[in-house]
Amino acid sequence: MKLASYKDGSRDGQLVVVSRDLSTAHYATGIADRLQQVLDDWGFLSPQLQDLYETLNQGKARHAFPFDPAQCMSPLPRAYQWADGSAYINHVELVRLARNAKVPENYYTEPLMYQGGSDDFLGPRDDAQFASEDWGIDFEAEVAVVTGDVPMTSTPEQALEGIRLLMLANDWSLRHLIPDELAKSFGFFQSKPATAFSPVAVTPDEFGDAWQGGKLHLTLQTQWNGRTVGMCDAGQEMTFHFGQLIAHICKTRNVRAGSIVGSGTVSNRAVEKDDNKEWVKGYSCIAEKRAIETILDGKPSTEFMKFGDTVRIEMKGKDGQSVFGAIEQKVAKLAG
Amino acid sequence: MKLASYKDGSRDGQLVVVSRDLSTAHYATGIADRLQQVLDDWGFLSPQLQDLYETLNQGKARHAFPFDPAQCMSPLPRAYQWADGSAYINHVELVRLARNAKVPENYYTEPLMYQGGSDDFLGPRDDAQFASEDWGIDFEAEVAVVTGDVPMTSTPEQALEGIRLLMLANDWSLRHLIPDELAKSFGFFQSKPATAFSPVAVTPDEFGDAWQGGKLHLTLQTQWNGRTVGMCDAGQEMTFHFGQLIAHICKTRNVRAGSIVGSGTVSNRAVEKDDNKEWVKGYSCIAEKRAIETILDGKPSTEFMKFGDTVRIEMKGKDGQSVFGAIEQKVAKLAG
Repeated sequence: MKLASYKDGSRDGQLVVVSRDLSTAHYATGIADRLQQVLDDWGFLSPQLQDLYETLNQGKARHAFPFDPAQCMSPLPRAYQWADGSAYINHVELVRLARNAKVPENYYTEPLMYQGGSDDFLGPRDDAQFASEDWGIDFEAEVAVVTGDVPMTSTPEQALEGIRLLMLANDWSLRHLIPDELAKSFGFFQSKPATAFSPVAVTPDEFGDAWQGGKLHLTLQTQWNGRTVGMCDAGQEMTFHFGQLIAHICKTRNVRAGSIVGSGTVSNRAVEKDDNKEWVKGYSCIAEKRAIETILDGKPSTEFMKFGDTVRIEMKGKDGQSVFGAIEQKVAKLAG
Repeated sequence: MKLASYKDGSRDGQLVVVSRDLSTAHYATGIADRLQQVLDDWGFLSPQLQDLYETLNQGKARHAFPFDPAQCMSPLPRAYQWADGSAYINHVELVRLARNAKVPENYYTEPLMYQGGSDDFLGPRDDAQFASEDWGIDFEAEVAVVTGDVPMTSTPEQALEGIRLLMLANDWSLRHLIPDELAKSFGFFQSKPATAFSPVAVTPDEFGDAWQGGKLHLTLQTQWNGRTVGMCDAGQEMTFHFGQLIAHICKTRNVRAGSIVGSGTVSNRAVEKDDNKEWVKGYSCIAEKRAIETILDGKPSTEFMKFGDTVRIEMKGKDGQSVFGAIEQKVAKLAG
């Protein structure tokens, strides 16, 4: 089933069930008002939402209305956890290669993750506002999951059972603020402003065999200012699957319902062609494009985003239809 | 006023108002069920709670009952943000000096902070369960604040206005897991298991002039296995006040209602005595004690905590009464 949170002036929005083809929606009133409520009591509430979803898909829901992604907040407009992995090691290899640094051995055996801010997510069509254009504004197109309760010391396989929903994420990054923060070794803070998620969150059963072994085997499409820059396969080259990412958190604590866990920038290897490397699938963040330029030409030539720039992130199913709706955001100067 | 969340089997507990002397409590039913709800709508709900608080203090609340800290969850049993600073630079200096490392210049001008997990806090009397005793189990006694909405780019002075409540925190740390995580530069994850907060959260007006300039000028008392190990002044030597810590987060994003911001381990300088340094005020975490031992003797002699060990963290007002109630936790082996 597909779920979204409609803007209603409240902090958490109003829960709606969205039809499979994203054409219609229906308020979940009478079942639950907020998505977190459903995650807190999934066993009891989700079957009721599933019934409504089926009625909606059959065109039989009485008070259905046209679904409008512009009315959406992020499915969880705020969450109790946002933990973002860096599960596509190719991305890490490129960025490191560009600055002649080796990838530490344990990056291949243990997921790299950071704890993100989760008190204030952007809606999928909200402007991303920044006080300065000089911070190296960058998008990061990712896949993310929302969990139920996953107890401490769960295995990756057990953790997979705790996945309730999938979403897309745009993990906004301020690249020029990153080096100083990482040098302090306490992780990201100012360099990771509010993240945005796709209009719709989707249960794993919707994906058929595209969801396998904790990886989503579909293509993540990224457009920058209307031009397609990324057509990256989110499945095959994911070094750590979502169960492994969640289990990493679970080593020393419980993961509770409504936790969001991200994949990190989706990234694919180059293909060899006439003795050259070609990154035919493009990129899901500008930093990676700049790393590739540095590897090939000695220096980056692509600038980061400017005020007025747009980014669009979407994923289509095997039927060619948009699965999550598109994240479509504009970079804007913070007012005031 | 003083607020707590009583265990009722739910994820967020039941909001109670607690009398100034911590002797009695009263359910806030009819005003609000959960503390987050109050923080979401502070202007409307807090005056009603304040009225109840005054009635309770006068002994006139009809359904008052004896307050029992053992029934408490953390005031916010889960939160949308837990950002922990390292605001007592003396602590950083000691730890660095012990390993012959210099404190980077910018540590004195810009707060060091990390984003913590906030989906699953421990109650103030809950056991702290760990799978292994070999991880270097340590307490960290801290002061923490809970904020209202603080908009992006707020100044430290504006941020101070956004502070709604104060609490104590026990920021459990697994010391032997820290070096590997910091080496990856993405910050803490497995080395920072679930944090616990004091039984009661307290509004700033309760402190009189002990709350000044964003610092709490009272003594934080820490006992380990019944022995007092720390009597640290939380005010004077705080390098960055809470307004500065919050403003640090606000540089590139909004801080939303219910965010918890911590001070980091409260730490005081040594006093010179007969050409010797003496740390007469003790320590608020074992790591600092071990750093001092290393500085004085070349190596640490104090071990980290073992299963069965206890820690007690409390702060008394100028009247000698406990302000927040005590955090009292036992280290236990994770069952199963």
